[in-house]
Amino acid sequence: MADYRKMWEDLGMDLKTHDLLCQALPDAYTNIYLAQENRPEGMAYYDFVVSEIHGVRPAELIEHQRQGGKVFGTFCIYVPDEVVFAAKGIATGLCGGSQFWVPGGEKVLPTSTCPLIKASVGARLDRTCPFFRIADVFVGETTCDGKKKAWEILAEDVDVYVMDLPQMKRAKDVAAWAEEIKAFMKKVEEVTGNKITAESLAESIKLINNKRRALARVFEARKHSPVPISGKDALLITQIAFYDDPARCAAQANALSDELEKRIEKGIGVFPADTPRIMITGTPMAIPNWKLHHIVETSGAVVVVEEMCTGTRYFENLVDESQTELDKQIDALAERYMKINCACFTPNEGRIDDILRLAKEYKVDGIIDVNLKFCGLYSTESYKVQKAIKEAGIPFIHLETDYSEQDAEQLRTRVGAFIEMIRK
Amino acid sequence: MADYRKMWEDLGMDLKTHDLLCQALPDAYTNIYLAQENRPEGMAYYDFVVSEIHGVRPAELIEHQRQGGKVFGTFCIYVPDEVVFAAKGIATGLCGGSQFWVPGGEKVLPTSTCPLIKASVGARLDRTCPFFRIADVFVGETTCDGKKKAWEILAEDVDVYVMDLPQMKRAKDVAAWAEEIKAFMKKVEEVTGNKITAESLAESIKLINNKRRALARVFEARKHSPVPISGKDALLITQIAFYDDPARCAAQANALSDELEKRIEKGIGVFPADTPRIMITGTPMAIPNWKLHHIVETSGAVVVVEEMCTGTRYFENLVDESQTELDKQIDALAERYMKINCACFTPNEGRIDDILRLAKEYKVDGIIDVNLKFCGLYSTESYKVQKAIKEAGIPFIHLETDYSEQDAEQLRTRVGAFIEMIRK
Repeated sequence: MADYRKMWEDLGMDLKTHDLLCQALPDAYTNIYLAQENRPEGMAYYDFVVSEIHGVRPAELIEHQRQGGKVFGTFCIYVPDEVVFAAKGIATGLCGGSQFWVPGGEKVLPTSTCPLIKASVGARLDRTCPFFRIADVFVGETTCDGKKKAWEILAEDVDVYVMDLPQMKRAKDVAAWAEEIKAFMKKVEEVTGNKITAESLAESIKLINNKRRALARVFEARKHSPVPISGKDALLITQIAFYDDPARCAAQANALSDELEKRIEKGIGVFPADTPRIMITGTPMAIPNWKLHHIVETSGAVVVVEEMCTGTRYFENLVDESQTELDKQIDALAERYMKINCACFTPNEGRIDDILRLAKEYKVDGIIDVNLKFCGLYSTESYKVQKAIKEAGIPFIHLETDYSEQDAEQLRTRVGAFIEMIRK
Repeated sequence: MADYRKMWEDLGMDLKTHDLLCQALPDAYTNIYLAQENRPEGMAYYDFVVSEIHGVRPAELIEHQRQGGKVFGTFCIYVPDEVVFAAKGIATGLCGGSQFWVPGGEKVLPTSTCPLIKASVGARLDRTCPFFRIADVFVGETTCDGKKKAWEILAEDVDVYVMDLPQMKRAKDVAAWAEEIKAFMKKVEEVTGNKITAESLAESIKLINNKRRALARVFEARKHSPVPISGKDALLITQIAFYDDPARCAAQANALSDELEKRIEKGIGVFPADTPRIMITGTPMAIPNWKLHHIVETSGAVVVVEEMCTGTRYFENLVDESQTELDKQIDALAERYMKINCACFTPNEGRIDDILRLAKEYKVDGIIDVNLKFCGLYSTESYKVQKAIKEAGIPFIHLETDYSEQDAEQLRTRVGAFIEMIRK
């Protein structure tokens, strides 16, 4: 591993605490990822990214800044990356998926805040994540109560720009979201000093669509049996997609898909063909949150699809590439993004439709609906989700968890019993 | 007390369970309210309302329905009552303030939902509150995650109409709220069958403004020392204002204010002049949630103002009465309602300004910032509130509680210590 200490120091990071984080990751990764058998060769790239998770990409972002470029940190798949890249900026995910950052968040946030938000705020305030140090602007949104109020606390420390996402999906709400995208465009132009044109936006729309197409190819491969890639590996690909250069992300996912498609032809899988196929639905799993996938895939089942922000919600639906005028392109962006079925909307029947559709497409044997503790949106929506899934006759279990390991054994017991029940 | 059993039966209520609720209230009210000394005579009206809380007003609402009128149940002070009354409808509050209803809500909602929402849903689903049985339409809004998702569960049982409140306060957000009011108007016209005209809206704007003026008069009296009315009594007046006929509410509050103003002239108070004066800020206290006020006022202090939805947020700022065209009146409504500083907005600096202003106006000696458990908005905002209040040099304490009595002793200890500290 290259030496990034100088870079981290220049970023004003707390090196001593950060060292503790760096020490813990390799062991966890070896146990959870490298111990898997018969992994696709294409996963080598992702293994490399994890091995240098706070090095390679941060170095690229800093190089981009040295050349006058700007970096926009985002927390939600509703923020349109296209706008940022159209102004020669770089958008990067900023979500925190480790318990390591939670106590830092709890210094300023109520304990009864979801671990994703606590970890994100902690990563920033404790100065133990380079991405949080590098970003020139943080882009927030109004998707949930916890994040909405967390922006105000983060804003004491950095430039935070908030997009107001409508909470319903009527025609006027899509139009309102187009207006928000326009306002965001202005902000991005101000920060980068670059004008967004119909040409540059058309280019970035293609760039991000291509990334979506590549991720969709990986997921397409997961529909087959025996499944050619583990759920853990697929999750990792999605997680890294939030941070990676979009063109490289697409290239790597496509290269991996070539390999997966060959595996499918040859009938090569990572689990026996009769392994129970699980869908996981619910709150996002930010890197390195691999907890539930690891439990499922070491309990005799395989995860074949995630109906999550770190899953199908991230890449399904493309932006219309046929528009050539700025206003029409923005409408196309608004339409595509408003198709994401986040529990922040009321009602959110589209998510239930998605779950039932994906269950068929991926031939799932059971559904695990999981939410991070204190996520009021997904935990409340679970009531309707459960009803619909049970009506459809699909085995279902609802779990609530956080980033700690305290409930790991309890989860393992419940997941084990669920898989046992499916097998019968 | 009149016999309302037939009425409750006709409403499809669960009489057996409801009896338990009715049995508990008189004792609690005697201990908490009637035991107070030197109460204003004008409180007799409110005592009567409480003694027939599920009788008198429900009977009026049913009579209104018999004559072809409609009843709109609301949960939030953002829903403009003016629109409902302009179409000859009646708007009534539907919030649940008792632990009695919480278990019913927990049957369908996550435990980590705030008690206000759990109680409201429980009151409906368990059929133990006549108001929840009477309302023809429930009007929800998108003010918090918990309520937003609860509407979907309630909607399985009743007609729920949701207003999408913007989450920011830019000019375009005020305009968006005006659009939402217009859409709501259409719904109200459909449900009632009555057209809203500039004349009828002008009338209802005056009706509700008069209620606001009357409540403001009661609060104005609380600025004096010795304070002529207890915090508990003032809270009750606000709580009942959510349910009562607006004209009668104004008349009663004005009659009481006459009495309070005479008391002020004569220097008559309900507590000695040197009693520490407390402001309570935070989440609303729906009837019969009198827990914290009772603790404060039996621990040597007096509550002189509530910066809450059941407090100043409910009546401060009037709707401009000078507009004569429907569109302009709607804009005036939107402007007035968007002045409410709810923690659902980001940022919400206006609330901090309000707290500091009210602290001066009511000459408070200390501020208790309290939120219901699992209210992510107010509990997170507490961080910034605390900072601002401490900077202003005002004694401050943050509390979190629910409707149960489990933490009553602990609260009493903390509140007692806080008051002791102020006294020094």
